[in-house]
Amino acid sequence: MITDLPLEQLRTYRPEVAEPADFDEFWARTIAEARAAGGAAESVPADTPVTAVRVEDVTFPGFGGEPVRAWYLAPHADGPLPCVVEFIGYGGGRGLPHEHLAHAAAGYAHLVMDTRGQGSSWGTGGDTPDPHGAGPAFAGMMTRGIESPDTYYYRRLVTDAVRAVDHVLTRPEVDPTRVAVTGISQGGGLALAAGALHDQVAAVAADVPFLCHFERAVRITDARPYSEIAAYLSVRRNVAEQVFRTLSYVDGVSMARRITAPTMISVALMDAICPPSTVFAAANAMPTPPQVEVYHFNDHEGGAGEQVLRSLRWLGEVLG
Amino acid sequence: MITDLPLEQLRTYRPEVAEPADFDEFWARTIAEARAAGGAAESVPADTPVTAVRVEDVTFPGFGGEPVRAWYLAPHADGPLPCVVEFIGYGGGRGLPHEHLAHAAAGYAHLVMDTRGQGSSWGTGGDTPDPHGAGPAFAGMMTRGIESPDTYYYRRLVTDAVRAVDHVLTRPEVDPTRVAVTGISQGGGLALAAGALHDQVAAVAADVPFLCHFERAVRITDARPYSEIAAYLSVRRNVAEQVFRTLSYVDGVSMARRITAPTMISVALMDAICPPSTVFAAANAMPTPPQVEVYHFNDHEGGAGEQVLRSLRWLGEVLG
Amino acid sequence: MITDLPLEQLRTYRPEVAEPADFDEFWARTIAEARAAGGAAESVPADTPVTAVRVEDVTFPGFGGEPVRAWYLAPHADGPLPCVVEFIGYGGGRGLPHEHLAHAAAGYAHLVMDTRGQGSSWGTGGDTPDPHGAGPAFAGMMTRGIESPDTYYYRRLVTDAVRAVDHVLTRPEVDPTRVAVTGISQGGGLALAAGALHDQVAAVAADVPFLCHFERAVRITDARPYSEIAAYLSVRRNVAEQVFRTLSYVDGVSMARRITAPTMISVALMDAICPPSTVFAAANAMPTPPQVEVYHFNDHEGGAGEQVLRSLRWLGEVLG
Amino acid sequence: MITDLPLEQLRTYRPEVAEPADFDEFWARTIAEARAAGGAAESVPADTPVTAVRVEDVTFPGFGGEPVRAWYLAPHADGPLPCVVEFIGYGGGRGLPHEHLAHAAAGYAHLVMDTRGQGSSWGTGGDTPDPHGAGPAFAGMMTRGIESPDTYYYRRLVTDAVRAVDHVLTRPEVDPTRVAVTGISQGGGLALAAGALHDQVAAVAADVPFLCHFERAVRITDARPYSEIAAYLSVRRNVAEQVFRTLSYVDGVSMARRITAPTMISVALMDAICPPSTVFAAANAMPTPPQVEVYHFNDHEGGAGEQVLRSLRWLGEVLG
Amino acid sequence: MITDLPLEQLRTYRPEVAEPADFDEFWARTIAEARAAGGAAESVPADTPVTAVRVEDVTFPGFGGEPVRAWYLAPHADGPLPCVVEFIGYGGGRGLPHEHLAHAAAGYAHLVMDTRGQGSSWGTGGDTPDPHGAGPAFAGMMTRGIESPDTYYYRRLVTDAVRAVDHVLTRPEVDPTRVAVTGISQGGGLALAAGALHDQVAAVAADVPFLCHFERAVRITDARPYSEIAAYLSVRRNVAEQVFRTLSYVDGVSMARRITAPTMISVALMDAICPPSTVFAAANAMPTPPQVEVYHFNDHEGGAGEQVLRSLRWLGEVLG
Amino acid sequence: MITDLPLEQLRTYRPEVAEPADFDEFWARTIAEARAAGGAAESVPADTPVTAVRVEDVTFPGFGGEPVRAWYLAPHADGPLPCVVEFIGYGGGRGLPHEHLAHAAAGYAHLVMDTRGQGSSWGTGGDTPDPHGAGPAFAGMMTRGIESPDTYYYRRLVTDAVRAVDHVLTRPEVDPTRVAVTGISQGGGLALAAGALHDQVAAVAADVPFLCHFERAVRITDARPYSEIAAYLSVRRNVAEQVFRTLSYVDGVSMARRITAPTMISVALMDAICPPSTVFAAANAMPTPPQVEVYHFNDHEGGAGEQVLRSLRWLGEVLG
Repeated sequence: MITDLPLEQLRTYRPEVAEPADFDEFWARTIAEARAAGGAAESVPADTPVTAVRVEDVTFPGFGGEPVRAWYLAPHADGPLPCVVEFIGYGGGRGLPHEHLAHAAAGYAHLVMDTRGQGSSWGTGGDTPDPHGAGPAFAGMMTRGIESPDTYYYRRLVTDAVRAVDHVLTRPEVDPTRVAVTGISQGGGLALAAGALHDQVAAVAADVPFLCHFERAVRITDARPYSEIAAYLSVRRNVAEQVFRTLSYVDGVSMARRITAPTMISVALMDAICPPSTVFAAANAMPTPPQVEVYHFNDHEGGAGEQVLRSLRWLGEVLG
Repeated sequence: MITDLPLEQLRTYRPEVAEPADFDEFWARTIAEARAAGGAAESVPADTPVTAVRVEDVTFPGFGGEPVRAWYLAPHADGPLPCVVEFIGYGGGRGLPHEHLAHAAAGYAHLVMDTRGQGSSWGTGGDTPDPHGAGPAFAGMMTRGIESPDTYYYRRLVTDAVRAVDHVLTRPEVDPTRVAVTGISQGGGLALAAGALHDQVAAVAADVPFLCHFERAVRITDARPYSEIAAYLSVRRNVAEQVFRTLSYVDGVSMARRITAPTMISVALMDAICPPSTVFAAANAMPTPPQVEVYHFNDHEGGAGEQVLRSLRWLGEVLG
Repeated sequence: MITDLPLEQLRTYRPEVAEPADFDEFWARTIAEARAAGGAAESVPADTPVTAVRVEDVTFPGFGGEPVRAWYLAPHADGPLPCVVEFIGYGGGRGLPHEHLAHAAAGYAHLVMDTRGQGSSWGTGGDTPDPHGAGPAFAGMMTRGIESPDTYYYRRLVTDAVRAVDHVLTRPEVDPTRVAVTGISQGGGLALAAGALHDQVAAVAADVPFLCHFERAVRITDARPYSEIAAYLSVRRNVAEQVFRTLSYVDGVSMARRITAPTMISVALMDAICPPSTVFAAANAMPTPPQVEVYHFNDHEGGAGEQVLRSLRWLGEVLG
Repeated sequence: MITDLPLEQLRTYRPEVAEPADFDEFWARTIAEARAAGGAAESVPADTPVTAVRVEDVTFPGFGGEPVRAWYLAPHADGPLPCVVEFIGYGGGRGLPHEHLAHAAAGYAHLVMDTRGQGSSWGTGGDTPDPHGAGPAFAGMMTRGIESPDTYYYRRLVTDAVRAVDHVLTRPEVDPTRVAVTGISQGGGLALAAGALHDQVAAVAADVPFLCHFERAVRITDARPYSEIAAYLSVRRNVAEQVFRTLSYVDGVSMARRITAPTMISVALMDAICPPSTVFAAANAMPTPPQVEVYHFNDHEGGAGEQVLRSLRWLGEVLG
Repeated sequence: MITDLPLEQLRTYRPEVAEPADFDEFWARTIAEARAAGGAAESVPADTPVTAVRVEDVTFPGFGGEPVRAWYLAPHADGPLPCVVEFIGYGGGRGLPHEHLAHAAAGYAHLVMDTRGQGSSWGTGGDTPDPHGAGPAFAGMMTRGIESPDTYYYRRLVTDAVRAVDHVLTRPEVDPTRVAVTGISQGGGLALAAGALHDQVAAVAADVPFLCHFERAVRITDARPYSEIAAYLSVRRNVAEQVFRTLSYVDGVSMARRITAPTMISVALMDAICPPSTVFAAANAMPTPPQVEVYHFNDHEGGAGEQVLRSLRWLGEVLG
Repeated sequence: MITDLPLEQLRTYRPEVAEPADFDEFWARTIAEARAAGGAAESVPADTPVTAVRVEDVTFPGFGGEPVRAWYLAPHADGPLPCVVEFIGYGGGRGLPHEHLAHAAAGYAHLVMDTRGQGSSWGTGGDTPDPHGAGPAFAGMMTRGIESPDTYYYRRLVTDAVRAVDHVLTRPEVDPTRVAVTGISQGGGLALAAGALHDQVAAVAADVPFLCHFERAVRITDARPYSEIAAYLSVRRNVAEQVFRTLSYVDGVSMARRITAPTMISVALMDAICPPSTVFAAANAMPTPPQVEVYHFNDHEGGAGEQVLRSLRWLGEVLG
């Protein structure tokens, strides 16, 4: 069941993870272009039976100014409110508002960002298209545009995540000094990215994060979604170098090196989808050690509801 | 993928399902004994970060007066409130309060009953023991005590469900004329049972219900938990008649015949765990046809969050 | 192993398959627009060790005039040559020239069309992008743009197939009265489509064709790629009608109704991916009965090299 | 296929396995209480067509004096006879007498102990209930009562095993100086336990024993039954320490440290259910090295009939 | 789980099963040739710790006079003894003597015939070669020599079975009027064959017999060993007719038509390896209806030890 | 996914692989006997639609002079031609000529040797029997006659491969100084063997070769065909030493030590069937280091069409 290094080695696992020289420049340019692209945000009352918190159906401008959907849930209170921006796991979308009540019920403004082009694989789906074509790709999002960092799908999605933080900062009831980012799996990877690339993020809570240490992940797990990359390279046998170069722009290890906000990372030692060594590679790369919650006997479900609880309590301490 | 009859046949599928002559007497006696056993209910504030609704940690007396745990969530309002009593799927328990916010956030008092002896198979588990031994049983709860209706595990669990309804009726803020029961899978089977055996239930919403039409279910699916019964009979080759007699006391088809409250049943046509014919067998046995929500392309996850939405809207119409 | 109707029923299986009123108009418009979009074809000698036949690396204009790649192989002869246009199975691309020698070695000009956006799932892949984004889609190509016939991926791919026939007709050595279309699985579905939509196709050889009788296929197989559609509908629970309307524009049954050229169809009775009833539904819909080659004990691999042989011999008879 | 350490490392594998300070006291008290609980043994001729050996249907008092069933088979001879007490693998029961003829046919008195509460998972089952309830448990016996050594299922089953040895010592034809214990898998684990806890055991033959070195076993195999413990801990995320403390009272490594009788242990190097390192951990912990029979290419079936042969021959040498 | 027709249809299932015109002639000639081939039988004391019954290591002449191994076990008694000749399931061999004690312990002489060329797939194997080569065959014995009845493997094995009966009839202590044949799966198929082809067989007990109604079996199960035939035909696409002609010489349905001795057949309704319809096809073809033991919830393990018991009791009644 | 050592260790992996003292004498004698056995070769035009190259249906004498089938394809040219002798993967046969066009189309004479007794497991099969019986064997060819090097199946097949090279050397248009051997998997193992045992082989191209370093292979993979050997040894528990002695006569590592011709070996790092360490063990044993083509993300399909290309280009350089 343990599919990876033992815990004592994981605690100090710090592999070399290559980083392109223009990493910061790439993202600065990308985000600047997205902000410059404009696009208006819209927020209307959501059609939901939920009444104990307010719920809005949001559209905000993401990569290229393209519209991204979200739910916004918040206490019936005037603010200033601490705020949590949440990103979703691979294949899913923002779903329905009543599926996301915990944070608002605990007193937080809460933006649940939809995932462009995904949102049709599990749960109740999403509503945001990804209006970009791609070269020949393996089924799934992992290899769309992967032969160049400029065309890679995750360039767009990471930018959406940064722009989601921008969006909540425009809301008057949100306390701009108390904005956290969070998510599970792909959502956790995006939380690391937003924590690295947006300087107003005050806390990061990343659960069993995906998108970390690709060079190892692609080789040690045969589970999706990392395996989509291996599948692609098993057909396109001459482009591995180029592909890993692209991935180095979105690698959570490089993101982690840039995070200065307080961070909690949860990891599951029997995680076959996001192997623990890939998660520790990111955790151990942070300039300030994060709080790591270890689930010894869990696969990728990790801490589940228990981790929501620990995370809410930790956010309470960190954000005040 | 279709593992069962086509929809047009399901709509009118009314198999013969045997019912013991003393069915009503058996349950009347069982419930009367449980009520007579006494045992005090207790309700204390739950340890949770949730503030938008009130949350209580409940212990109420179930079968034999034995303590059963539950969460009680309700709007911060004086009442009278409509109330939903919810039962949990196989292997699970009441979990954590922040996992059950939708009903209270939509204005309902909401009791989430724990499941005795289960609660260690998925999610965040439960807290209620089942203090009864058993003869040689196949792994799981399905065959514990199955060679007699008196010792059968589900006699105890169904009684707990009925007593959970009793419990909410003791709460002053609950409107006793607007108490619904609901649940998914095993929880749906228990909702049918409580709807049949408790005369103050005003609405029943059973999603992809388990525990229906055992004679067919045990033969057409090799998925757990129905298959636990087949596995048991594959070893104990001479007790099938006795086992099916026991099961006839808890069969959802016989329960359905006795339900008079408005009922919504959801069913998934690709459900390999609770095959749709077993669900329609129950739905079609009701004296008044229930509203049936059909999910054509889903397995046992059924309508998931979408069905929560439909169910909440239907409860709003039915309970006012 | 038999996953479908018995052979004697398959022989006469003629289900009702809905067809939109504007089917012919839709395709006439689509193809006319593609032809009008222009775009130049290019053909250069391929980089390959093959010398016994000539091999060219082709780019021709497909849907929207967008560039589509292909290999062109032909005998070292002056012509006029009979010509076979071949389409590839799901997930694959045109691969490498030496993988496609049989037809040219048997005396045919042979165009192997690449598949836009696919070509990274098996074999040696492809080289043609699909420069169109999509709404939230399930992994794979089946559900990209599926909520409208205008945006659906297969509208583009079918148009590419028709334009590939256009392309070979521009080649002086190709005898324009002896152009056949062929393919396996998705390639077989495209062959049926090109045979229906292009009036200069003189023969159609479709092996274990995909893209036929979606309403049934999506319900009876849980194998990819049909299951991508079911997976999509299991999340997007309210759009089934719209999705099946889109699919009705590319259904091989409706294509088959329009094919007048001599046709050979091969089918495998243990095919779990393209169930035989879906293939017979198309075969039995043709105005003139096709020659049907039945492989009784094969799964989706069907006749494989044996069918190549039978097909080559049949083409020899049909095309002279 | 090798799922564990290589053989040369296994030969000297001696991990630290924690042992509670009151281990001996715990068992001394437990066994003393069982012996004090009384309960009469009963032995009647079995209903079987077997005539070449005598067969009796036995009930003897086990844990808490509770009745435990067994078969007693013996040569038609006066004695004194060497005797073998056998315990059964997980999920099974004593089955039918004609399934247990080898030992008696080879000259031994032979008691086949039933397994309380199991006996409905394979073969022809068993007849002994386990009249004790449990807290929320994962399906199977491994986690019943596991949060305390006092309530743990295996406390009861080990005690039954010790009491089975007590029982054969009451039989006049049994030579009390020549009583061996044996079993496969769970039966092997119980043989180690009885060999450790009963001072009149003269030989121990444990095949592919289960219940050894839990801390490692639970982490390196995802096969049942060890995985039941991991599954439990994946839901009850905060009780691992308590659970492993309970398990330390029944760990075969601690049992092995206490065995002084001659011992044969068989082990299979491709055993995915009871990994060889867990077996060698016990074998290498014995004060006197046991005879270890290694099956290099077997999974958990181990030596099967070949090992029965080797074991019978070894018993012949050891018991005279 | 039910993989076949419902029981009420099975009870009267009498499919047409083709029989070659020279079926009887073929077998008469084959057996006559084998008897004419001579070859001496040899029987020496077996090397085994078993003493309660006598055990001999036998070699007798089978097909072509080639040596076939067997174990002979019998009570220490003078006779005349009833005798059971047993054949082994697919892939197995005669194993070790202590694995076959039940019949001798119940008072029968018992010959356990080894299976030529098999005996290396499970258990403790066998000792009899099959000194015949074959054309290209799929892995396993099912397709060795299958393109002609003369070269087919099962021609040799069925002849061995008939010659095994011949062998026990040479033993003075065996009562020649009380010789039964029995076996499980392949052994059951051979028991039907020996019962049909040897006129001194006084009883047939065939459990979940294999080798029946090939035309159906090969199409409805994808489990080995029937699937070896489908696999062969999936590669050799043009020889199905020839293969099924060969199989018609060993089909248990044709054998059953010729059995006049009292017969017990056991069948498992969830048998995926030897589907119940293929077994009932044989049972229902007998001139005198056999006693059919139905195991409703078992897969191919069928009645296991319970069926041994029922079979021994039935033999007691039938053979006296 | 990486199921073996990391690449940097593979590059220098040189395990001890035992070699029998009479290895060279054994093969010298075996091949001499085969050559002495005589048997005429026959070559007739093949029945195929292929015209661009000539195709002949060949029968040549192999082991024991027994007839072995092959296809011979060659350019329509006078010669002298370089020639490639190809061997086929496990379970397959020579198939149909149009499946083997690449080499002849690139200018090589090409002999595709059929595989005795195989040729019914995939593709379009083969036509060569193996007229030798065997002792009890596990399904498949791996264990036929395995208890002695003299009777082992691969003794015969390796001899066929050497005799195939003899055959092409008899053809006048073949340049005897430019004969290469090649193959994939089993074919690669045979290419290594022919390269070692035939002194006129001028180049060896072995792709993902099978039959290398059995002692390790049998222990680290549970995939067929290596696992057939483990399965055999799991039943025949006392013959491992004898079996590995037999295998040492055909081990590709010992073959590699004897290859002096230029060699290309391809290996796939995620190959679960022929694990990369077993391939590198052979590659690293060669007296002159071969060219190794590494496919990092492929399973046993390895380089597929890409490797055909690399191999053809390399042959062009090596053979001129």
